[in-house]
Amino acid sequence: MVIEEIDDYIARAIRSRDLPPILEDAVCYTVLAGGKRLRPALMLMCCEAVGGDRADALAPATAIELIHNFSLVHDDLPAMDDDDLRRGRATLHVEAGEAMAILGGDAMMSLAFELLVEAPVDSRSKVRLTSELAAAVTAMINGQIYDTIGGMPDNLSDEQRLRLIHRNKTGALLRAACRMGAICGGAADETLDMLTRYGEAVGLMFQITDDLLDVTQSAEHVGKATGKDLQAGKLTYPGVMGIERTRADIHRLRLEACQAIEGLGRAARPLCDLSDDMARRTR
Amino acid sequence: MVIEEIDDYIARAIRSRDLPPILEDAVCYTVLAGGKRLRPALMLMCCEAVGGDRADALAPATAIELIHNFSLVHDDLPAMDDDDLRRGRATLHVEAGEAMAILGGDAMMSLAFELLVEAPVDSRSKVRLTSELAAAVTAMINGQIYDTIGGMPDNLSDEQRLRLIHRNKTGALLRAACRMGAICGGAADETLDMLTRYGEAVGLMFQITDDLLDVTQSAEHVGKATGKDLQAGKLTYPGVMGIERTRADIHRLRLEACQAIEGLGRAARPLCDLSDDMARRTR
Repeated sequence: MVIEEIDDYIARAIRSRDLPPILEDAVCYTVLAGGKRLRPALMLMCCEAVGGDRADALAPATAIELIHNFSLVHDDLPAMDDDDLRRGRATLHVEAGEAMAILGGDAMMSLAFELLVEAPVDSRSKVRLTSELAAAVTAMINGQIYDTIGGMPDNLSDEQRLRLIHRNKTGALLRAACRMGAICGGAADETLDMLTRYGEAVGLMFQITDDLLDVTQSAEHVGKATGKDLQAGKLTYPGVMGIERTRADIHRLRLEACQAIEGLGRAARPLCDLSDDMARRTR
Repeated sequence: MVIEEIDDYIARAIRSRDLPPILEDAVCYTVLAGGKRLRPALMLMCCEAVGGDRADALAPATAIELIHNFSLVHDDLPAMDDDDLRRGRATLHVEAGEAMAILGGDAMMSLAFELLVEAPVDSRSKVRLTSELAAAVTAMINGQIYDTIGGMPDNLSDEQRLRLIHRNKTGALLRAACRMGAICGGAADETLDMLTRYGEAVGLMFQITDDLLDVTQSAEHVGKATGKDLQAGKLTYPGVMGIERTRADIHRLRLEACQAIEGLGRAARPLCDLSDDMARRTR
């Protein structure tokens, strides 16, 4: 139900913007390809968990999904991870050429900020949303730079390097999804803090699970190339910690996520269930 | 004076953000390479022309310069225009690799929106600034798509196609610079309209002049490759209209720009002088 609602809204939002048809096709090809919609779902659920109306979070939810997709398109480029397969189909540069993948990714980011300020919330909240999203995008890019180009501070252990990458590359946007949902719902500072801690726990858990799936699952099942981290000599959680410790940490973070939002009472339930699903996912 | 003030502010803004050092280097290499700072100058001058304090427009001026630089870095990529030279030095992908040029360009866009909402203006103005900038970035990308990939509507004459490209590719951001300056200065709707028409005139004039320089000047003088439009079979103003008509239109647009802001009285003078300088530039 949540996914269909988000997909509908995203499709209408993109098609209403009077883009050049070839750009609209490229954006729709990428964004409407059956993603998990994890970030939008987190945002809507955090908005509701603080007593807000999920409709107020639909525009920002679309914005964060556009940002996520922009990052996938650029990360898949030949000069980056050079991936041909994403969500079980050809990546955008394979489908529409490298120039369109560069410009289409760029457009997904600018469209995200256009949409974001159309959220039906007050101006002060819009400014906070913009600030949250922009800072999370910069953090995500920082993480991508550490992961693919390097330049990390010296004297960090492998574990510290891994955490620095994960916290930025995937964690920052998932954390922002939770915070932005809370802001859309008009959360008080204390509640915002709870959802921030929840977002940090599920953010790290999500990337650890991703690393684990890269080791344990087939490409066919996951819908993108697997085993690539190892081939590329990248730091991964199972690579640094071992598989047993990895599974134990996923379990620990799942509990941490639910504990962080205990103060919300019954309203925490859907978010707690979601973190359970995230811990158990196989693709 | 304006240029030094802007350069100082930009340098401090970038260095204060705690970026990974290799990203900070890439952004500084690109942004602090002696650009003309035309968009920031337009923004500060429009802010002052409506009676505002230019200091209120410094953060947005830095934001728009970051956007301009992001677009240069991505346009220069091998899969795009494949340019090695920019402002008389190696382009970012030649200097720091293609992955850094992709990610560094992306970061310049997200940093722009981070900075924008730090402007010392009220929340409502911040939202308007964000909306203006995001829409202008999307328009700029649309123009770039028309220019390099295609997909323009059928049945347009060469002149119509050329105007569609120019209005989006360069015009939209110059127009936004003027409007954003006016918004920072607290302009009334009528004044905002005047500066919008001024921005549209100088925006088109700027790109026509650029096309003309590509035909008439050496690469050494301009600081980037010239004669490339013709080689690439791109539509250019002198190519479609002839050189005489091109010069006449530059003159006409210069007058239009000054007439648009006559209602501002003496406060229009610096902007009118700037449009004269833009019409006469040789690089």
